[in-house]
Amino acid sequence: MQAVMTEAAHGRIAGRLAALAPDLDVLLVTGQNLFLRGEEAVPPEAVDPDIIWCSLDAYPGPYLGTLFRTAVHAPRKPWMQAFNAGLDNPVFKAIMANGVRITKSSAQSVPIAEYVLAHAISLIVPLGPQAEAQAAKTWTRTPYREVSQSRWTLVGFGPIGRAIAVRAKAFGAHVTVVRRSVKDDPAVDAVVTMAALPDLLPEIDVIVLACPLNDETQGMANAAFFKALKPGAILINIGRGGLVDEDALRVGLSTQQPGHAVLDVFQTEPLPDDSWLWSHPQVRVSAHTSNSGGGTLQRGDELFLANLKHFLAGEPLINEAHPSEVGL
Amino acid sequence: MQAVMTEAAHGRIAGRLAALAPDLDVLLVTGQNLFLRGEEAVPPEAVDPDIIWCSLDAYPGPYLGTLFRTAVHAPRKPWMQAFNAGLDNPVFKAIMANGVRITKSSAQSVPIAEYVLAHAISLIVPLGPQAEAQAAKTWTRTPYREVSQSRWTLVGFGPIGRAIAVRAKAFGAHVTVVRRSVKDDPAVDAVVTMAALPDLLPEIDVIVLACPLNDETQGMANAAFFKALKPGAILINIGRGGLVDEDALRVGLSTQQPGHAVLDVFQTEPLPDDSWLWSHPQVRVSAHTSNSGGGTLQRGDELFLANLKHFLAGEPLINEAHPSEVGL
Repeated sequence: MQAVMTEAAHGRIAGRLAALAPDLDVLLVTGQNLFLRGEEAVPPEAVDPDIIWCSLDAYPGPYLGTLFRTAVHAPRKPWMQAFNAGLDNPVFKAIMANGVRITKSSAQSVPIAEYVLAHAISLIVPLGPQAEAQAAKTWTRTPYREVSQSRWTLVGFGPIGRAIAVRAKAFGAHVTVVRRSVKDDPAVDAVVTMAALPDLLPEIDVIVLACPLNDETQGMANAAFFKALKPGAILINIGRGGLVDEDALRVGLSTQQPGHAVLDVFQTEPLPDDSWLWSHPQVRVSAHTSNSGGGTLQRGDELFLANLKHFLAGEPLINEAHPSEVGL
Repeated sequence: MQAVMTEAAHGRIAGRLAALAPDLDVLLVTGQNLFLRGEEAVPPEAVDPDIIWCSLDAYPGPYLGTLFRTAVHAPRKPWMQAFNAGLDNPVFKAIMANGVRITKSSAQSVPIAEYVLAHAISLIVPLGPQAEAQAAKTWTRTPYREVSQSRWTLVGFGPIGRAIAVRAKAFGAHVTVVRRSVKDDPAVDAVVTMAALPDLLPEIDVIVLACPLNDETQGMANAAFFKALKPGAILINIGRGGLVDEDALRVGLSTQQPGHAVLDVFQTEPLPDDSWLWSHPQVRVSAHTSNSGGGTLQRGDELFLANLKHFLAGEPLINEAHPSEVGL
């Protein structure tokens, strides 16, 4: 059985990998279309993996392209562990069209949830007014409506949505989840489908877009969405830029619908220099970086090893993607 | 049975109060040393309450002073529901010396915990660097060590400490509590006494002072404390200003011990105009306002009504202070 991965990833788990699968033929990607077995280069026709591990350290860089190309052409319909959760990049369709089984990563759920909570709570608790009072050397109380009194809606309820819900519920917030199928869940207060979202919008204090980008969700935050949204609401997008109609957002901001937008993803990335988003006073921009917490790499390693055990035992894999998720 | 309270407080709960205690003789404080029964002024010698409710709406203002004076001289050793948790103001010693039973409030625990989490998480998740990158229109990732990887120490474990612990644990932080007696608690990872604090300091990412001010805790954050503290740690004081030696803090900040100080309370309040704290780049100042969340008033009403039921039934009261807490 053959596996391909980066040298860095292999270095982190070599001992545990050898214990789990002593006979595994491990090829390390060490350059564009270059694989080594130990110190020896492997001819392209001998690269024929059962397992492809795209670890976070492969991104950004040429190794990731090489791993993707290997997956698109792999003869043996291997299993590929991804480091990401969103599969809207067309390469994943090509990979699954080749019969590859893809498992998505949940390793980044923790920092993405921390990003969402940090932004939302620092806007609800009046840190801005406190800083202004400090700058003016003014001793003044800053009353506010509590997080415990706020209503959140999370669009999407994969591992990221769940990680957000756990933290928001610890604050006593009311949390509604929008997902494909309605199934009560003890982690949240209500579960609805997308059809119910328009009726929710006037009551929402915090709305988080944490769903895949697909035909149903493309441009879901449009003019009608913002027109219905509660004035002063906080919009946070950590899904994909295509979920938000940026022109409609600009109009909405002028009536505080939303009052603040926190955007980690954009229609065009990197965000162009001349985008109005950079300098709008109600918009917080970050560089698709909500996943860059210090624990993500290690959680990704643990997920790969857990899935490897399942794979070797012929058991169901954790977070395996359905072909419909890539439009197949 | 006689009770004194503010007109505002009575207005919020009149119906429920009448249902609980239909025969209660309710006097409303409506001016300095002035009480009304209905529309009629009550002569001072007829003010002889069994119950004194100091609700949050009495602060700041003359009503609170009137309620305190009533408690200091009350002949019947009444029960007094306070709106605060800290009893270091000498008036509480005088009140308890008169035999009054004081119950402290936990109603402000929620916004104080939100204040602590908002500040800590917005410093750990790199919101500052993200804002700087946005201001410079720079597309750059902002890696960071996660809240989930952080170690917190809470000095004090009353209702406020508990409310902080619940929220920090939801983020996966490691939480140690410093309290008077060591008693394992499922809500946190470790419980220690003050004697163990010096050994903890080099490992702490976030230290929160949420304890009463007394002989043991006065100036506890002193030169030795800051010298031992982990560089880069975040200090948050929502207890009392006297817990922190502000001169020692200033020296400590120069070596990032702590990296940031978030202070809602000060040795002198209001913080004097010429204090260095207002303009230090590593210090966040707020005006003893961490309790000013929109849910505090209602939670205070609910606590009074719950304690009133216990009082009428002769049952133990919620959050009753021990005389040792005021130095008796």
